[in-house]
Amino acid sequence: MTEDLSGAISRRSLFAMIGKTAGIAVMYEAMASMAYAAESTFKGPIKLAGAPMGASVLILGSGWAGMVSAYELRKAGYKVQILEYNNRAGGRNWSLYGGDTYTELGGFTQHVGFDKGLYLNPGPWRIPHHHRGVLHYAQLLGVQLEPFIQLNYNAYVHSTAAFGGKPKRYREVEADFDGYIAELLSKSMRQGALDQAVTKEDREILLAALKNWGALDNNYAYTKSEKQSDRRGFLHPPGGGMDAMPIPSDPLSLDDMIQSRMWSAIGASKSYDVQQTMFQPVGGMGMLGKAFGKELADVIRFNSKVIDIKQDASGVTATYVDTVKGGAPQTAHGDYCICTIPASVLSQIPINVGAPMQAAINNLPYSASTKVGLQMKRRFWEEDEAIYGGITYTDQPNRMIGYPSSDFFKKGKGVLLAAYTFGSGAVEYTAMSPAERVQKTLDYTANIHPQARTEFDTGVGVGWHRVPFTLGCAGSWTEATRAAHYKDICAIDGRIMLAGEHVSMIPAWQEGAVLSALDAVQRLHSHIVQGA
Amino acid sequence: MTEDLSGAISRRSLFAMIGKTAGIAVMYEAMASMAYAAESTFKGPIKLAGAPMGASVLILGSGWAGMVSAYELRKAGYKVQILEYNNRAGGRNWSLYGGDTYTELGGFTQHVGFDKGLYLNPGPWRIPHHHRGVLHYAQLLGVQLEPFIQLNYNAYVHSTAAFGGKPKRYREVEADFDGYIAELLSKSMRQGALDQAVTKEDREILLAALKNWGALDNNYAYTKSEKQSDRRGFLHPPGGGMDAMPIPSDPLSLDDMIQSRMWSAIGASKSYDVQQTMFQPVGGMGMLGKAFGKELADVIRFNSKVIDIKQDASGVTATYVDTVKGGAPQTAHGDYCICTIPASVLSQIPINVGAPMQAAINNLPYSASTKVGLQMKRRFWEEDEAIYGGITYTDQPNRMIGYPSSDFFKKGKGVLLAAYTFGSGAVEYTAMSPAERVQKTLDYTANIHPQARTEFDTGVGVGWHRVPFTLGCAGSWTEATRAAHYKDICAIDGRIMLAGEHVSMIPAWQEGAVLSALDAVQRLHSHIVQGA
Repeated sequence: MTEDLSGAISRRSLFAMIGKTAGIAVMYEAMASMAYAAESTFKGPIKLAGAPMGASVLILGSGWAGMVSAYELRKAGYKVQILEYNNRAGGRNWSLYGGDTYTELGGFTQHVGFDKGLYLNPGPWRIPHHHRGVLHYAQLLGVQLEPFIQLNYNAYVHSTAAFGGKPKRYREVEADFDGYIAELLSKSMRQGALDQAVTKEDREILLAALKNWGALDNNYAYTKSEKQSDRRGFLHPPGGGMDAMPIPSDPLSLDDMIQSRMWSAIGASKSYDVQQTMFQPVGGMGMLGKAFGKELADVIRFNSKVIDIKQDASGVTATYVDTVKGGAPQTAHGDYCICTIPASVLSQIPINVGAPMQAAINNLPYSASTKVGLQMKRRFWEEDEAIYGGITYTDQPNRMIGYPSSDFFKKGKGVLLAAYTFGSGAVEYTAMSPAERVQKTLDYTANIHPQARTEFDTGVGVGWHRVPFTLGCAGSWTEATRAAHYKDICAIDGRIMLAGEHVSMIPAWQEGAVLSALDAVQRLHSHIVQGA
Repeated sequence: MTEDLSGAISRRSLFAMIGKTAGIAVMYEAMASMAYAAESTFKGPIKLAGAPMGASVLILGSGWAGMVSAYELRKAGYKVQILEYNNRAGGRNWSLYGGDTYTELGGFTQHVGFDKGLYLNPGPWRIPHHHRGVLHYAQLLGVQLEPFIQLNYNAYVHSTAAFGGKPKRYREVEADFDGYIAELLSKSMRQGALDQAVTKEDREILLAALKNWGALDNNYAYTKSEKQSDRRGFLHPPGGGMDAMPIPSDPLSLDDMIQSRMWSAIGASKSYDVQQTMFQPVGGMGMLGKAFGKELADVIRFNSKVIDIKQDASGVTATYVDTVKGGAPQTAHGDYCICTIPASVLSQIPINVGAPMQAAINNLPYSASTKVGLQMKRRFWEEDEAIYGGITYTDQPNRMIGYPSSDFFKKGKGVLLAAYTFGSGAVEYTAMSPAERVQKTLDYTANIHPQARTEFDTGVGVGWHRVPFTLGCAGSWTEATRAAHYKDICAIDGRIMLAGEHVSMIPAWQEGAVLSALDAVQRLHSHIVQGA
């Protein structure tokens, strides 16, 4: 428990104490009653009580799950070692910098040509404020974080089918959506349509609320006015001195707003996972994996491709080949094993776990995703268009353009996340050669930012189904597969446990991997201590 | 015009060129047709063409308006000097740091006890992305900017009259407001209430939009579910490994949501002036005034209280007293004068301008505002409550709590902007002694953050009506006073012009002062060149 100098107990400590003594339900009750909606199941640094019985744990993979497992188990006194396929730690926590080389399945090799300090995060790129596990390790590792701008009212929404393919500012779309929604609901209420659903008193208050929220006029209409432009932007904004009078802008028509389907972008920043405030490590998401790898340098063996995993009464043996030096297969042994190899890869490796866990491994497809980074000769989105961070949404196959949340106002080059695809579009994208991915992405980008044509410098594109160490982006559970297999993928199978984002309810997020690993090491430790 | 190496003209340059050659209406037309809603009337650095005829300009006040005027006129070849009342440049651009002393009207002196690096911005504290004038000078002065977090879904909305005075997270209030709005409007539409207002085809699409935006279920109802909790937060969020199933939270009831009036906070971050992305200077807003003052060090005379302004055929003479050394009144002379002294103060200084300008000066009341900064022994809002930047809204007299957008995750002390009041509440606040302001603010803060009681360290409170150099926060125009006086306050009265936020359509914002000054120097220059 943390106490400050004045003797006051922090709320976090108080809740943890209630959780320990009265159980989790009471703890959540207490949190709720103190108006603290629970934000994370991470309840502060774990403590593994009891001696580790001299046990060793072999860990496969040095992504988040593997490194959290190794770190916590080593701290508790276990002997740990990690086998890692790549020549670096981090797994999907990964940034591509200038000078890096990346070879995907199929043999295409990309030489990243970004300038110093610029990067693409092929994997995770943002950390929600409630991902307490990731944030905890970021602090512990001394990795500096900076705000990640998710929502930018001055970024665009773009539809090839609407407004002649011309983008609209996010503020225009949100303001008009809100405004028309407010107008229509006000109209219904004033016509008596909701007299059954809402009390008279509430209707009066709700009308006032809609007027305020939707920027309606005194007749509850969403009409061209300064009030309206104070939401959607002005044709000519207010200025200084003479000729400073603002000129309001024209709203989209109700029909155009609805038909454009641009409203779908408005919900995008309201999801819990991407609600402001968000963070990113200074210098790229990969700084976290790098720092964690440094912390665990003496227990990670790189370039080690696991080809077989066998357990028996005496422990677990992994057979691996050195992907650089080659030579005969070698083995590594642990009394126990935490395997964080993605199920997509693991399903191709012989492992003698029971049928339920094997079925879980075999029945988890991995989602498709692509990211393309384009380096531009200048940060034209800032200089010309006043877009600082945030996301433009488009119905083109590149799906979105993410603007860098770092180096604001800096002169010189910058890297756009110019495509972030998932689903079927990502499959198509992955099927292209890297050069095609970059070219297509540039075309899509230029439909929104014509400057991209002349400002384009160099690009890199990663299709996750061609990433050798994952063969996909993330475990793609359905309700049915969860019901059938989730418990089994979490189980302790003899001396083997699995961990990773695929062993969590937060798939594709780093936090899922962290919480999965914390759960695994705690259960494994209990198992070992109690079984002794 | 800026051209990049490839010969492409930047859009900004293109628009500026159209503006110069075809007039402003055509320029805005062009911008609109290229989907660039105009963001600012700042059109890049000004160029004053033609020789200044050896003229000198006396500038009164070294706030934004005075310093922009001095900088641009000096660059164009004018002789400039500034008389400044304070012992520092910046005016309302001002940060209070540990070691600073501030004496307000009434004689109360506050010795600021903040730790090194911590500050309160008594005046402006955030810069919109579209305040291109301020951002231009920030770049020019080399002042580093960082994101200012305006909207934080994890901050609170608080009403003393609702939910037993317990705050709700912003996400809960917004999600429930959106959800019920979507549900009610869907219900109306499905009952045929809007058949006249919306076509059948649009109604179908709008229903889909409402379902998506409002997180409605398949029956278009806003019901307790994971989908809903993915907006408003979970009672128990999804986790990793075993026992990772999320538990949804309970929404507020429609009646409670409406009656709580917490919805009023939802509109607060949608206004053009505070739409994301926003910025602040690293180290406090005052870094801008400080840097500008350094740039103009050789032309500013500090501690100079102007007591009389007289113009005649030969120029303008200001009489001033040295507020530190005292002694006989002295005079400063210029061929012309740009006076940026706030109207609240200027109305008490004899100045021989014509009746229209004098009436404008005399008829502009200044708004009330208070800011109180409380230094806390630790950043409990981050450590305990995962609140990183952003604003909590309350119906208590302190109105809001602003969390620092700097030093995220840093251990140690932090300063909350624990009161930011305006209107009648600010008048009451200003009437209190500084110690009372701090105490009251601490009480209000503790109603939301009980930790504040034990974590409180030291505070400072500034009531703008007691600030000697402004006697109020900002020029408080009404539609009627604008109609009667705005043109006159912008006029060239003989050899005198006025500038400042009060001579703009963006009152209370730094940008208003910048644009006002740019307008003033351009018109004054034309006047001088043409009149020669």
